[in-house]
Amino acid sequence: MENFEFYTPTEYVFGRGTESRVGELTKKMGSRLVLIVYGGGSVIRSGLLDRVKTSLDAAGVRYLTLGGINPNPTDDRVREGIAVCREAGVDGLLAVGGGSVIDTAKAIAGGVPYDGDFWDFWAGKAVMKTALPVGVVLTIAAAGSEGSGNSVITRLDGMRKISLRTTVLRPRFAVLNPELTFTLPPYQTACGIVDMMAHIMERYFSNSDNCEVTDRLCEGTLKAIIAESPKVMAEPDDYQARANIMWAGTIAHNGICGTGRVEDWTSHAMEHEISALYDVAHGAGLAVVFPAWMTYMAKHHPHKIIQFANRVYDVATAEEGIARHKQFIASIGMPLTLEQLGIENPDLETMNRKLHENKGEIIGAYHRLDSLATLEIYRLML
Amino acid sequence: MENFEFYTPTEYVFGRGTESRVGELTKKMGSRLVLIVYGGGSVIRSGLLDRVKTSLDAAGVRYLTLGGINPNPTDDRVREGIAVCREAGVDGLLAVGGGSVIDTAKAIAGGVPYDGDFWDFWAGKAVMKTALPVGVVLTIAAAGSEGSGNSVITRLDGMRKISLRTTVLRPRFAVLNPELTFTLPPYQTACGIVDMMAHIMERYFSNSDNCEVTDRLCEGTLKAIIAESPKVMAEPDDYQARANIMWAGTIAHNGICGTGRVEDWTSHAMEHEISALYDVAHGAGLAVVFPAWMTYMAKHHPHKIIQFANRVYDVATAEEGIARHKQFIASIGMPLTLEQLGIENPDLETMNRKLHENKGEIIGAYHRLDSLATLEIYRLML
Repeated sequence: MENFEFYTPTEYVFGRGTESRVGELTKKMGSRLVLIVYGGGSVIRSGLLDRVKTSLDAAGVRYLTLGGINPNPTDDRVREGIAVCREAGVDGLLAVGGGSVIDTAKAIAGGVPYDGDFWDFWAGKAVMKTALPVGVVLTIAAAGSEGSGNSVITRLDGMRKISLRTTVLRPRFAVLNPELTFTLPPYQTACGIVDMMAHIMERYFSNSDNCEVTDRLCEGTLKAIIAESPKVMAEPDDYQARANIMWAGTIAHNGICGTGRVEDWTSHAMEHEISALYDVAHGAGLAVVFPAWMTYMAKHHPHKIIQFANRVYDVATAEEGIARHKQFIASIGMPLTLEQLGIENPDLETMNRKLHENKGEIIGAYHRLDSLATLEIYRLML
Repeated sequence: MENFEFYTPTEYVFGRGTESRVGELTKKMGSRLVLIVYGGGSVIRSGLLDRVKTSLDAAGVRYLTLGGINPNPTDDRVREGIAVCREAGVDGLLAVGGGSVIDTAKAIAGGVPYDGDFWDFWAGKAVMKTALPVGVVLTIAAAGSEGSGNSVITRLDGMRKISLRTTVLRPRFAVLNPELTFTLPPYQTACGIVDMMAHIMERYFSNSDNCEVTDRLCEGTLKAIIAESPKVMAEPDDYQARANIMWAGTIAHNGICGTGRVEDWTSHAMEHEISALYDVAHGAGLAVVFPAWMTYMAKHHPHKIIQFANRVYDVATAEEGIARHKQFIASIGMPLTLEQLGIENPDLETMNRKLHENKGEIIGAYHRLDSLATLEIYRLML
């Protein structure tokens, strides 16, 4: 185990009907005028946005709204939100949605009190010291942003997709009502499942040995996801299965699965280049990337792939583990190749070049990869 | 899964040499004059107390000390600490030790700003609204108090041992350096192992079904403890094994293992009556209580005992699981009977009477137990 710090000050309020508490929680985080950030029209159609507003009204919290945040959220909407907040004197953000909405709200929260351009933080030119408080009402179990300090934003100018991680951006509260995910389409549900598994696996595949506790937490959460996924795919309104998947998504990314070790976010970085170029769903992209990455590792650096096979899928070899994982991915309707992902002639060279432009000549911690190696992994996705 | 709230705002700073950061962390929690609470002389002999003071000096934090806190800490020392804090204007507590020291520091922290007698909170006569901030330097992996809102205090007048749980008492920070546990005697190390396992098991044995994620977190942490324990017993200065045991102790009791379910603290309550009457080590008492409780449940309500046997010990039946658990308990030198615990003629009737006086006529959530049933369980400890 490596030395580590672990600090998760998010207050989770989990269960049926918990969105009715959003007013009280927003007031408790010290906000009197919030910007509600949301995505497409589903939160309007479902009545969720109205219920959130009713709860805020009852608590005497005023609000403005910023809707229409898309998947792979972009810097233009962040800048728009920052301008709105500054003009109106907004003192808190309330994200009602999934990862893209939460990440946008976080970026706005960090940008408002900063004199320069918010992108400075994502570009590594400045360190975020403070941010407006952020609250979350989660509607998609996937990104884990409700319990993380991460925010992934794509800069339209140059199509650079970058993830920032800072304690400052951890939400103050997260309302987690599994019922809100009943209406998610199967494809998005499955994307979320792959995304949360990836969040665990990027932490799990590490050379930091002797992390028995953390390993077991990862393996256990993965096993639970694998057991519950067929249930949510078969019955979208299975409350208990949705609840387990939702809680797994938070645990996958709040940091507990990484305690004591060096993480390796290569697969996420490789996927970010795919979805930056082709605008595919992040989870579907990860469904394709991970088996390719694992197949490469089974040849070059297998020890943790074997443990994964042994303990998560109860099989003996790395190859069997990868096969079982592919079988699981396919069983929830996710793609295994770039072609199945809908990309007919993928520009592997450009993705690979951008990957190393963004992340450096050699990437990876579990196993160091140069551009030839990552290109080989991209080719394994064909 | 039941609705739940989960809020763990403790900042964990884990690893070698981390006690040197205690000054910085204490300052960050807003304290300028702290009361350092500690136990016997080991923190003096090891030089830890001096290192802590040096770190506080460097950060410009002043301090007073309250030493000599014993296992099963008592209300008299809490009152003493409250008086010292009030007189000197102390604005924070720093616990350097294990569970008894931390629990005492917490009780003082809650008592100082309260007009009435601090015991009101433990007696259920008042609800704690505020407390001085508490920081921890942990020296014993066991009680999990470093990451919990719990504080167990024994009232000398009447020998009532009561556990209070409130978010207000969660430590602001916890410094976790596994090296500080190298010198723990084997008996205390083993007591700690049993204690942390019990913290998980009291949450695990629940009728709240469909908690697959939480179940897996519990089972995984238990498996890790079972794997690492022989290493720390064989080599007390095995850093990696000590690190895993230390982190497991925190996870066992910070609440994550109870998310989504009704917990059942019957075994802890039964043990509290043993150690209140005979002043045995809490962990050693639990070593005796748990197999007896499980043996009773295997007969009357076996479903979760069977799952425990299947997934933690990889055996088929409740009976085999209990046998394996007993074998593990014995392997780390812990007692399996009250006699092995050193109590020759245990006054079961008095313990049983006090149990129900303190906890009510019927106790337990996994399975409801009247005084005849709990007496039967006490008898299974003979």
